[in-house]
Amino acid sequence: MNAEIIGVGSELLLGQIANTNAQFLSKQLASLGVNVYYHTVVGDNPKRLETAIEAAKERADLLVFTGGLGPTKDDLTKETVAKSLGRSLVSHEESLSSIKDYFVKTKRVMTPNNEKQALVVEGSDVLLNDHGMAPGMYIEADGKTYIMLPGPPKEMKPMFENYAKSHILDRLGVKDQIISRVLRFFAIGESQLETEIEDLLEAQSNPTIAPLAGDGEVTLRLTAKHETEEGALALLKEIEDKIQERVGEYFYGYDQTTLFSEALKKLGEKNWTLASAESLTGGLFSERMTSISGSGEHMRGSIVTYHDNIKEHVLGVDTDVLQKHGAISEQCARQMAEKIKEKFNTSVGISFTGVAGPNTAEGHPVGHVFVGLAIEGKETVVHELNLQGTREGIRKRTVNYGAYYLLKEDSEL
Amino acid sequence: MNAEIIGVGSELLLGQIANTNAQFLSKQLASLGVNVYYHTVVGDNPKRLETAIEAAKERADLLVFTGGLGPTKDDLTKETVAKSLGRSLVSHEESLSSIKDYFVKTKRVMTPNNEKQALVVEGSDVLLNDHGMAPGMYIEADGKTYIMLPGPPKEMKPMFENYAKSHILDRLGVKDQIISRVLRFFAIGESQLETEIEDLLEAQSNPTIAPLAGDGEVTLRLTAKHETEEGALALLKEIEDKIQERVGEYFYGYDQTTLFSEALKKLGEKNWTLASAESLTGGLFSERMTSISGSGEHMRGSIVTYHDNIKEHVLGVDTDVLQKHGAISEQCARQMAEKIKEKFNTSVGISFTGVAGPNTAEGHPVGHVFVGLAIEGKETVVHELNLQGTREGIRKRTVNYGAYYLLKEDSEL
Repeated sequence: MNAEIIGVGSELLLGQIANTNAQFLSKQLASLGVNVYYHTVVGDNPKRLETAIEAAKERADLLVFTGGLGPTKDDLTKETVAKSLGRSLVSHEESLSSIKDYFVKTKRVMTPNNEKQALVVEGSDVLLNDHGMAPGMYIEADGKTYIMLPGPPKEMKPMFENYAKSHILDRLGVKDQIISRVLRFFAIGESQLETEIEDLLEAQSNPTIAPLAGDGEVTLRLTAKHETEEGALALLKEIEDKIQERVGEYFYGYDQTTLFSEALKKLGEKNWTLASAESLTGGLFSERMTSISGSGEHMRGSIVTYHDNIKEHVLGVDTDVLQKHGAISEQCARQMAEKIKEKFNTSVGISFTGVAGPNTAEGHPVGHVFVGLAIEGKETVVHELNLQGTREGIRKRTVNYGAYYLLKEDSEL
Repeated sequence: MNAEIIGVGSELLLGQIANTNAQFLSKQLASLGVNVYYHTVVGDNPKRLETAIEAAKERADLLVFTGGLGPTKDDLTKETVAKSLGRSLVSHEESLSSIKDYFVKTKRVMTPNNEKQALVVEGSDVLLNDHGMAPGMYIEADGKTYIMLPGPPKEMKPMFENYAKSHILDRLGVKDQIISRVLRFFAIGESQLETEIEDLLEAQSNPTIAPLAGDGEVTLRLTAKHETEEGALALLKEIEDKIQERVGEYFYGYDQTTLFSEALKKLGEKNWTLASAESLTGGLFSERMTSISGSGEHMRGSIVTYHDNIKEHVLGVDTDVLQKHGAISEQCARQMAEKIKEKFNTSVGISFTGVAGPNTAEGHPVGHVFVGLAIEGKETVVHELNLQGTREGIRKRTVNYGAYYLLKEDSEL
């Protein structure tokens, strides 16, 4: 099955937004084994949309539309698809009543054009919109398959995953269970990881193994097919075990998790409290930890000692250490971690000092960084890093390493 | 002139990257008065690329290609365009020698396939690549215009701006100087701003006024055309003066600046030092300020009092205030700002306390926020906000308001 993804909306052609919907759908369709051969974007113009539909019908089996299902007169995807199929639009009662409910609940006045949102192409399977008003549609006609999805990603994504996907699998006659699992790795480069599992990558068929690098980490997406869910899970386990045996020391979590979520989970398991003393990172570690709802139980706070004065007079680093070793030193990182732990009365103190750039500092090159970790009842550890990249990249990588070190810390209190 | 943007690369169809090139080029072309009617994405497949080129020739005057100019056998944009034009590829000496230089400089071995990068379509104007190896091309043939640009945004964007743009302006016969200026506004909604300048928006022709909302702020892009630069600047000044008269109180800066850059500039002008006491924002204000290189002279640091305990025992907020008014209160924000100023010995202390969500706290709804500003020699001010949105959005908006309040603070020390 070959697909074309058609984004509808002048905001795309004016460059006000990027077509991230096409990226999401491409990934999803690839994971179902559907080849995407074209993306098309067309504005809110019926004639040009018609041209795009006719061209897509020539070259694709599956046409996936995003956008143009809203209430305004500019929204005309379903009108134009209906016309191309020679069908009419009919009102979908369930959608209409949920639109009405929405207006009652939010105490807003429902204008007549909102009723337009409940119109669907005759004979289509309606895809419910759990996060907005406009329903989607699934249609099979003349050997082609049409899927219409809303434009806003927060409506489109769940509609695709929860409703459209199963229709596509039915259409493909897939009876197998397809299960994916993403393994996330940190502190290892893509080429090193691929080298370690080269033979597995070369021999892959079921499960498939797809590496992806980005944002300072590497992931492996494992996808297994089997008649039964149990069978697919067993296949996944088998390949995962082999991978973990080789590169498990860099593994930190599954699927959509982050280093910070995992670090927070770890704090919970250990029943640890945490505070950070931050210099080059300016508060980024604390910000990332507290961005997670419910983090307050374990993450107590931070002192950002951006000026050396503050290291000494607020945090309490010894004048001696600063004069003898400088602020960018193993000794300073050690004291920062110990002092913040003491001052905030936590189980763990973490510290960051180093050079974010663009200029060198105290004779240290850009990217020279120390991360200190002081844990109750344990000797303080200081990790030294030599990072490359922009100021922003170095700050980001530094706090990611902080979360990673915390996560890999195996001492018991 | 109508354009189609054609992205070439299987990585786009697999969803590994989003087509941000099309967004950038759409914005750029819109600002030149070129209508973009279609975006197309096609993989590294000669037949399907040919189909895409033929379709685009039917419906556009200008075809802009991104990607597929690299050294591997998968890169075939110029080969396919050359074939469609009945032209051959020739070596471009300047590009070839700069590719050779690159390998000498980086001490890497140049493989033969890299010579392929210096091939260009016969009769094309070569667009130099100042940030990579593959040159771009500009071609006029049979009434159509073809532009080929490399795929990596860091190569494509400067090539477009520095080389391709002037060719398009020549083609359009534009002899006028075109100058743009972006005015940035905060703390005013898009609809309110548009209402205030409705008559100017309706009467616009030269300069044009393009409003854009996003990321919690509103911008107006003013674009003037005139035979002379002086004349264009005078036209811009005239319309800007009218706009500033109406909504100048919400204006904070020009072009690519940010609230934080402007706030830092203000600290420099006043020769103020600053520290923040942060609760719901978890260090985000400090992180944003220190993300700017050279901020250390003015931004001294922060205490993140994520746990109420820390507000009392580290920052020094009165037990009384916390017990009587709670941590989410005007009184607590006031003390936090004053205490951090005192503790860090700065000219200014700024504080953030409130509810980021998703749950209510201390009986306050999500989005109820206090921002305190203590300035040497001045009465402390506390601003109260009622924000909407996600946890992340509320945190972001809160620190933006902090920078904005600081920026608009007109007291002298």
